[in-house]
Amino acid sequence: MKDLTLALDAMGGDHGPHISVPAAVQALTVQPSLNIILVGDKAEIQRHLANSTPHILERIDIIHTTEVVEMNERPVHALRFKKNSSMRVALELVRDGKASACISAGNTGALMAMSKVLLKTLPGIDRPALVSCLPTVKGKPVYLLDLGANVVCDSDTLFQFAVMGSVLCETIEKLPKPKVSLLNVGIEEMKGNDQVQQASQILQNTSQLNYTGFVEGDEIYTGNVDVIVCDGFVGNITLKTSEGIAKLLVHQLKTGLKQGFFVRFLSKLITPHIQSLLSKMNPDHYNGASLLGLRGIVVKSHGNADEAALVQAINLAAIEAERRLPEMVNDRLESILLDIKS
Amino acid sequence: MKDLTLALDAMGGDHGPHISVPAAVQALTVQPSLNIILVGDKAEIQRHLANSTPHILERIDIIHTTEVVEMNERPVHALRFKKNSSMRVALELVRDGKASACISAGNTGALMAMSKVLLKTLPGIDRPALVSCLPTVKGKPVYLLDLGANVVCDSDTLFQFAVMGSVLCETIEKLPKPKVSLLNVGIEEMKGNDQVQQASQILQNTSQLNYTGFVEGDEIYTGNVDVIVCDGFVGNITLKTSEGIAKLLVHQLKTGLKQGFFVRFLSKLITPHIQSLLSKMNPDHYNGASLLGLRGIVVKSHGNADEAALVQAINLAAIEAERRLPEMVNDRLESILLDIKS
Repeated sequence: MKDLTLALDAMGGDHGPHISVPAAVQALTVQPSLNIILVGDKAEIQRHLANSTPHILERIDIIHTTEVVEMNERPVHALRFKKNSSMRVALELVRDGKASACISAGNTGALMAMSKVLLKTLPGIDRPALVSCLPTVKGKPVYLLDLGANVVCDSDTLFQFAVMGSVLCETIEKLPKPKVSLLNVGIEEMKGNDQVQQASQILQNTSQLNYTGFVEGDEIYTGNVDVIVCDGFVGNITLKTSEGIAKLLVHQLKTGLKQGFFVRFLSKLITPHIQSLLSKMNPDHYNGASLLGLRGIVVKSHGNADEAALVQAINLAAIEAERRLPEMVNDRLESILLDIKS
Repeated sequence: MKDLTLALDAMGGDHGPHISVPAAVQALTVQPSLNIILVGDKAEIQRHLANSTPHILERIDIIHTTEVVEMNERPVHALRFKKNSSMRVALELVRDGKASACISAGNTGALMAMSKVLLKTLPGIDRPALVSCLPTVKGKPVYLLDLGANVVCDSDTLFQFAVMGSVLCETIEKLPKPKVSLLNVGIEEMKGNDQVQQASQILQNTSQLNYTGFVEGDEIYTGNVDVIVCDGFVGNITLKTSEGIAKLLVHQLKTGLKQGFFVRFLSKLITPHIQSLLSKMNPDHYNGASLLGLRGIVVKSHGNADEAALVQAINLAAIEAERRLPEMVNDRLESILLDIKS
């Protein structure tokens, strides 16, 4: 890997530099060709770097900023008034070619709005999408988009998401012709709302994509398809619902296994193994949602991500930068749009 | 309980009389004041009744029908051409006052369309909703609606769903002033699409409902609220996604626990207990979705419900009939609408 420089919004997320700085150090320790620019309150960042080795410190730059975008701040407010925020300055580094990607655990809406204004969307893309991968029964991940960046989407937007999701999956998983589907309330052609029905028509006429039709919610985790497209309202609720039911099942397993002496005894012995298994299903292990469709790379981490989870997001940004994801999406989109027009 | 007569669409679902007839017999065995009219192919139904006792048989009527609504048939087609279908005739029994409720495991869209035409909606209700309850961490159920009957909903429809869901929960759970929420992509007022934002405004001005604002997907299974309202597109995908992730977790628990001799040994001992626990989380234990907002009671069972699950749906129909749910919804709705207007 050739030298890469990433910009990290050190103030973003629920924990700020307390998590972001150690995560940066950990990512740098594992990847010797990586450089990270930490953007945020210099004094605070330096405090968390106190015990770092010179070998790590020489690959860290700090850019001091005075403002922070709050987690519940309105995106338009952040866009207008937080010119010296860690989030904005980190994105400007990507815009100005000083960093190959930006990572932030901050306010999703603000990150989206700032990214769109500062980095611009690719030609043919109206709105960037938020995409992440989820675990499946088959062991391989499935890419789900949009996860909440676009609450209302028309059929053209869903089509663009399908193209972008397909290219992302192909690029990251090195999987040729990933299977792309639309999330719907049934698999029959007549099912669903106007948006998904029209998007399905467009996708059926797009020979360059491996479009396999509609899937229902219970197909997300089977691994039968590689990319699933929906609007941000549905995607966000789907993702959060999954977290909710996973927590319910874990709760019921823990409390349910406590009944009876023998079972309690067995349960005590096996609990660490169940715990370790559950930790592998932890959403943090799939942390890092990409903002797709921009002329630069932006990765959003969970707001409450721990150190390991944030390292995951940094690694994802590094892979996308290495594989030049925006250029890949752009080339592919150009070719598909030409194909449809001809 | 005074004598109740229910109409069961014996041909509905993936298994028809093979499941529906034994389920009816089981429900009758447990509830001595219950009568069931089995609607479907008489010869086939009688074959499955061959071993039943006279005590049960005297509380069963059979109405012979010659047609069946297929699971993938278009609702409009079923409505127009299947006049002698088991589903339609069962609904007509409710319309004509010969049965207090209808239960069907058949085609949801067709059941919805036929119910609306034959039974009509209550005054003030534009469209019936499909509602079911789900398990939560707190042990008590949460009611989620709409589950797919209405793919597109405006704010007024969402408001009506909130009223109906609240009355249902109050009636079935005997819970005064259940907490009602709208499912959204965030809890802040500015979040979501026009429909949920406008519905939230209406609900905030409805003092007779205990409206608690927006909830995100991960709140569904916490038990912090009692009724959650969304459009049928989101509700259907949410429900199916939950089934999908539950299957993924069970799969990972089973395969993940197979590693290493000692763990494998422990796992073998504890597996029956995990299985029994998982069976309690089985969606069939919450089988039976009510079609709310009609002038009669209709309960939809899972298409692939087993005998025990279909008994659940029959029991739910009996409770709703006993507590005169449509009248309750009607009274409450009238009072709320008057309150808003005054």
